Amino acid sequence: MKSASIEDIDFEKGSGLVVVVAKEQTSGKVLMLAYANDEAIRRTVKTGFAHYWSRSRAKLWKKGEESGHVQRVREILVDCDGDALIYMVDQEGPACHTGEETCFFRKLEPRTHAK
Amino acid sequence: MKSASIEDIDFEKGSGLVVVVAKEQTSGKVLMLAYANDEAIRRTVKTGFAHYWSRSRAKLWKKGEESGHVQRVREILVDCDGDALIYMVDQEGPACHTGEETCFFRKLEPRTHAK
Repeated sequence: MKSASIEDIDFEKGSGLVVVVAKEQTSGKVLMLAYANDEAIRRTVKTGFAHYWSRSRAKLWKKGEESGHVQRVREILVDCDGDALIYMVDQEGPACHTGEETCFFRKLEPRTHAK
Repeated sequence: MKSASIEDIDFEKGSGLVVVVAKEQTSGKVLMLAYANDEAIRRTVKTGFAHYWSRSRAKLWKKGEESGHVQRVREILVDCDGDALIYMVDQEGPACHTGEETCFFRKLEPRTHAK
């Protein structure tokens, strides 16, 4: 695997934000999708816990800060054009605020909308 | 797993677009991240091949239309707040335009930017 530094991340395209996929290292499950700015990534690297930028609340947040459902980040991957990341994590408790293990707990049913 | 219909997808938050994670069904690898609008999702469901919306070119595109590196979509998952999807795919050839198997072929090296 090649290496990247934070300078390789393209924050401009997303107005200061990049998309982050949180993936559970052990199960390989995609747990959630969120956003990060430069500071969120730096804090993630520094503390080892996943930090994101909340667009709705317009603030930095540490995942699980209130719920205790933190994510220990084992590795961060950067995509080819530098505007998307994967946090490879160990998830404490359920990742989703609904109590589900992952936020992706619904399957799109083609029958109901195929045209 | 619960069910969702296309009406459960929240296009408003992202100005008509949702984020899509393409994940390889067999390997579990996250291959790429892209965007889709309503039409891209409908065409994906109808044809069985991954379609996205290109923000830079402002047009609908079928993944692999030129390269042949198409994605057969086996399942579409919807996240809790309906603004992100997972396309579970079988990937033909490399997913990344660089020729790499996945777009996430770089690892962020903490040493180079920890503050």
